[in-house]
Amino acid sequence: MDEFNLHPRLASDCHPLGDLSLSTVLLLNDSRYPWVILVPRRPDIREIYQLAAADREILLEESCRVGQFMMKAFRGEKLNVGALGNLVPQLHLHQVVRNSTDPAWPGPVWGHSTAVPYGREMLVERTRILREGLSLAG
Amino acid sequence: MDEFNLHPRLASDCHPLGDLSLSTVLLLNDSRYPWVILVPRRPDIREIYQLAAADREILLEESCRVGQFMMKAFRGEKLNVGALGNLVPQLHLHQVVRNSTDPAWPGPVWGHSTAVPYGREMLVERTRILREGLSLAG
Repeated sequence: MDEFNLHPRLASDCHPLGDLSLSTVLLLNDSRYPWVILVPRRPDIREIYQLAAADREILLEESCRVGQFMMKAFRGEKLNVGALGNLVPQLHLHQVVRNSTDPAWPGPVWGHSTAVPYGREMLVERTRILREGLSLAG
Repeated sequence: MDEFNLHPRLASDCHPLGDLSLSTVLLLNDSRYPWVILVPRRPDIREIYQLAAADREILLEESCRVGQFMMKAFRGEKLNVGALGNLVPQLHLHQVVRNSTDPAWPGPVWGHSTAVPYGREMLVERTRILREGLSLAG
């Protein structure tokens, strides 16, 4: 059985936040949106329906926990949740906090425009909020 | 307690396919993509995490069943699943079959370009495939 390895594109585009029981938690390096990506640590999975039923339920629970916390912590108007994977086939689930003042509103964030990387101070602060709020070790 | 009513924008943009145990199943009127929308019949819900835990699990099961069937029936390369709701706040979950030959590939379908409505023959055929494959009554 193959082992799980994070796709290099996800590794290069994101900052690692830690692990939940199923998913590795990543912060996308785009400071314009609170944007967290969950990657279930299972090899060779492209679609949610390919996960075992028990894993699917854990992924859903993790997505809800992360999304609800982000909406509260970052005062979001709407949460966008999506599994696309047209470019990066490894299953990964986006949770993006949206506001009517953000650059892509009301359109989708995917494919909208080039990311604006975090500066050091904002990255440290947002990482701290997420790691504490989601009880992420590591 | 309020009752559930389908959002008028979803009603006007889609063809009804029938009901699953939790969700009303809609076919988006864009013939370029096999694109099914699930709308849980619960009032006043905007986010997946606002659903009761039992409803969340049913929604996930329905999404996986619909998505897996669509990928097989329409020979998809990748499934896109998303809950956005920036324009239509009523919770609705997109399942879109993607192919590298489709107009928006590899970008997202949301916000890409104006829908191309179904002609009668293709609508009848796609509706039949989905209603039979998903055992939808109505």
